[in-house]
Amino acid sequence: MFRSHTCGELTLDQVGKKVTLAGWVQKNRDKGFMIWVDLRDRYGITQLIFDEERTPKSIMDIAKSLGREFVIQVSGDVIERESKNEKILTGEIEILVTDLKILNSALLPPFTIENKTDGGEDLRMKFRYLDIRRNPVKENLIFRHKVTMSVRNYLSEKSFVEIETPYLIKSTPEGARDFVVPSRMNEGEFYALPQSPQTFKQLLMVGGMDKYFQIVKCFRDEDLRADRQPEFTQIDCEMAFVDQEDVLNTFEGMIHHLLEEFHGVSVGKFPVMNYDDAMRRYGNDKPDIRFGMEFGELNEVSQHRDFNVFNNSELVIGIAVPGGNSYSRKEIDQLIDWVKRPQVGALGMVYVRCNDDGSFKSSVDKFFDQQDLAQWATKTGAEPGDLICVLSGEKDKVRAQLSALRMELAERNGMRKPNEFAPLWVVDFPLLEWDEETQRYHAMHHPFTSPKHDQIDLLATDPASVKANAYDLVLNGNEIGGGSIRIHDSETQSMMFDYLGFTPEEAESQFGFLMNAFKYGAPPHGGIAFGLDRLVAILGGQETIRDFIAFPKNNSGRDIMIDAPSPIDEDQLDELHIKLKS
Amino acid sequence: MFRSHTCGELTLDQVGKKVTLAGWVQKNRDKGFMIWVDLRDRYGITQLIFDEERTPKSIMDIAKSLGREFVIQVSGDVIERESKNEKILTGEIEILVTDLKILNSALLPPFTIENKTDGGEDLRMKFRYLDIRRNPVKENLIFRHKVTMSVRNYLSEKSFVEIETPYLIKSTPEGARDFVVPSRMNEGEFYALPQSPQTFKQLLMVGGMDKYFQIVKCFRDEDLRADRQPEFTQIDCEMAFVDQEDVLNTFEGMIHHLLEEFHGVSVGKFPVMNYDDAMRRYGNDKPDIRFGMEFGELNEVSQHRDFNVFNNSELVIGIAVPGGNSYSRKEIDQLIDWVKRPQVGALGMVYVRCNDDGSFKSSVDKFFDQQDLAQWATKTGAEPGDLICVLSGEKDKVRAQLSALRMELAERNGMRKPNEFAPLWVVDFPLLEWDEETQRYHAMHHPFTSPKHDQIDLLATDPASVKANAYDLVLNGNEIGGGSIRIHDSETQSMMFDYLGFTPEEAESQFGFLMNAFKYGAPPHGGIAFGLDRLVAILGGQETIRDFIAFPKNNSGRDIMIDAPSPIDEDQLDELHIKLKS
Repeated sequence: MFRSHTCGELTLDQVGKKVTLAGWVQKNRDKGFMIWVDLRDRYGITQLIFDEERTPKSIMDIAKSLGREFVIQVSGDVIERESKNEKILTGEIEILVTDLKILNSALLPPFTIENKTDGGEDLRMKFRYLDIRRNPVKENLIFRHKVTMSVRNYLSEKSFVEIETPYLIKSTPEGARDFVVPSRMNEGEFYALPQSPQTFKQLLMVGGMDKYFQIVKCFRDEDLRADRQPEFTQIDCEMAFVDQEDVLNTFEGMIHHLLEEFHGVSVGKFPVMNYDDAMRRYGNDKPDIRFGMEFGELNEVSQHRDFNVFNNSELVIGIAVPGGNSYSRKEIDQLIDWVKRPQVGALGMVYVRCNDDGSFKSSVDKFFDQQDLAQWATKTGAEPGDLICVLSGEKDKVRAQLSALRMELAERNGMRKPNEFAPLWVVDFPLLEWDEETQRYHAMHHPFTSPKHDQIDLLATDPASVKANAYDLVLNGNEIGGGSIRIHDSETQSMMFDYLGFTPEEAESQFGFLMNAFKYGAPPHGGIAFGLDRLVAILGGQETIRDFIAFPKNNSGRDIMIDAPSPIDEDQLDELHIKLKS
Repeated sequence: MFRSHTCGELTLDQVGKKVTLAGWVQKNRDKGFMIWVDLRDRYGITQLIFDEERTPKSIMDIAKSLGREFVIQVSGDVIERESKNEKILTGEIEILVTDLKILNSALLPPFTIENKTDGGEDLRMKFRYLDIRRNPVKENLIFRHKVTMSVRNYLSEKSFVEIETPYLIKSTPEGARDFVVPSRMNEGEFYALPQSPQTFKQLLMVGGMDKYFQIVKCFRDEDLRADRQPEFTQIDCEMAFVDQEDVLNTFEGMIHHLLEEFHGVSVGKFPVMNYDDAMRRYGNDKPDIRFGMEFGELNEVSQHRDFNVFNNSELVIGIAVPGGNSYSRKEIDQLIDWVKRPQVGALGMVYVRCNDDGSFKSSVDKFFDQQDLAQWATKTGAEPGDLICVLSGEKDKVRAQLSALRMELAERNGMRKPNEFAPLWVVDFPLLEWDEETQRYHAMHHPFTSPKHDQIDLLATDPASVKANAYDLVLNGNEIGGGSIRIHDSETQSMMFDYLGFTPEEAESQFGFLMNAFKYGAPPHGGIAFGLDRLVAILGGQETIRDFIAFPKNNSGRDIMIDAPSPIDEDQLDELHIKLKS
């Protein structure tokens, strides 16, 4: 036993007790005749005191030699502190040390082990084991554990069974790129790491395990956008004998449970919005509804004048920025520059100041009169004191641009409050989306998603209009989960593969096992998967998933702490029946 | 909502209720005027009844068409059964069906979906989704879930934090073969899948997360012995500021908890045996101590006669088989043949019948008299009525052979009772073992295991004699867990790599990050890892891990259901900067 107590638990109740503690030296204040050391472990900080009068000289000498992050073990008496620190639980006591042992010395850490550190991102990643000693990172990891346990216990109590599905599976070119694993025992063949356990969970439904979940690592070999990881964790769920409403109710319950457990908030029944509405009102299939600024569609009230920019646009839309009339001309110009950045891509922005006296002042006063502008205000819900920002262009593009502006303004104006939670179901997603590159339709969710039953005939005539039984759960402007009711008969599944451009042979070789399984009595089923990394980050009031992952990779998919990936031996390649191309 | 109830819950209490059920047709008995259908789901079986008088003809017709494993939905009234089945909870009622809908038809399954099936291993694996419908497999998977939840909650309550470590890590040639993953973004470089999260959990200790666990998939590209899987699940644990006793106590508590929760048994304090004793007494580092038949060492009492087989042997050992004197000559000959099989490899076996009158009759009466044999009986603990089996030869080999015989006899004689649990700690393992093939020492546990502190000097002079702070938990003759106290300073770690034949450059390039971490304040730490698959199987009273894995692979590492591994596209290889060798 290295310790009788942790550094986070001793209070006045223990005064007079002999205790043994172990931990890291957080701070060492040496006044010559007296030394105070802050001893830290996972649970807190306890102050140690050494003084000339009461501490043996040999111990005093060791105490003087202690550097930051040395690992030590001390024994001593709990005594009441003279100057108390009421900010921490252990702040009323200190340990008068009678014995001290250095368990391990430490080099000076490359950054400070404090809540606010002086270490940059790269340094912190290279020395992640030191970064984890810092409270914010440590608390995030513990929070992740608690959320995960809570999810598991909640689902388990609802009769869900966690079932492990394999990691070494089969590569299928549909979807994102697979990571593959050459097989030594099967020359010229490869396993793939799962992008999700999709087909396996569907097979479990065929197998009668009607409520499945799994918290599981998934892998996608994608070019990494900011804050994506090549390996990520999913809460993967599937149910049999359910329709869409059953799935939504079940997992709404789970999120309710988490919000209550971790924030004590009850958000009421989640609103449901269909995909088309979300795009129309927010330009986005994952709208943040914690704040307004809904889109006003202005075609009717803006294309009747000589302003050709609008007249030639498929769509003219605007939002009312609350209090935006207070922006200076310079601030508005900066906004215009912001929407013109290549990442957003607007060609310009029209704005209307809504004055307190009810009059309007716009950047297009030459073309539009007060009555026109008043109609814009009505359509965008602008009040006196607001600023109306108007963009125009091709429908999908301009919606995406205005959505980006809406989020940027909300961020700048503190409207995205981390401790306010606004969940939203987005439903009725399109079944297919057109891919310019390959010039064919792709499944928007995945090829196992069922089309709306009464729209199957439309697949032949107007595929883009067909909606799917697919849904996303959005929380504070982030997609935290998505799922669908699946196809459960082999004819429909085979037809879907056909529409998606699979030859019958390709469909058979890649997904024959699934279509075959559907012939042996497959129940209706559907499910959902949540991105655990993001869910935890948002529940933690943050948005950067990397801060909630113990050992994340950087944007090139590298682990810079262990320096992976790395070259391997020629022998290893040989055994795997492969060689490098160059 | 597809159902108001499951097929496992309706009893006389619900008679008169209108209910809706959904599930699979287990059985269809058609008497013409009356049809009974057994409807099955995950929760049980409920009997449906259709009869000419009370059921509409259209429904009757559909009912007649139902084949085995059709998926149906029925509505009807709960009524009391005429002939009750007291073996099942729902056996007193049946459903008089008023509505019936076929949700999906089914081909005749390739094997019967019954507790005892007619399907062979290969067929069951190919159609694993049908196999999972069978109660024994389904119950095993649910049992696995329950054990896993229990482990998680137990450790979580003891302040352990589950932390996910990465799956895409770095290949290291030490230990078993790695599965590797070519990197697309880092040309010519490879990730490896973890054989265990060993180094990461040690880094978490350096990071101050003093109680870590993770239930995690691990990967070893080994030639598969029977009942091994290339991917398997570990309960991986690590603690800081602990010595060996702390680790043993903590995880003894966990196993106690599981035995009590799942079997209601309290086994008391686990015995502790050191490795040398285990080898001497049982010829095995994972002895099954549910029964006796301990080895008697016979050198002193068997090498003083003219029997050269013994005189030329390094070790003569025997066991007393309880009641074995009742074996016929033929049975004993078969035993002798059994030990001579190449898998065991003995050259022969000497036996002694212990007669009820206290006399002995041996196969070597020409060389040994009654007094000699009486001494053998004393050394092996043989009683009248027993049979003493004696093997001789080179020490390590003969111990392994007699151990195999001991286990075989116990198995045959029903001494390995699945519902009796005998845990055992085996401690003080050798640090190193000699590898004939590479002609150097390998770490017996792994290179991070600390040698016994007072034996470090012996490393230079007599490395084979050095013991490690390493321990295994054995349950019923199976190693279910193993671990060690780790090295936590970079000097000792670097010395270990040196003894293991690493050049300083190799050690640095493969494990530099760990040795570097040890320089920044590493606490003393140690841990253990349990094989979840095996632990669950043994707790379930079985030994075949495959029966507790939803989608296992066969002995060639293939998933024959999805047909993986499989060839991949040339384009994919190209992107990964590799090509096939042939």
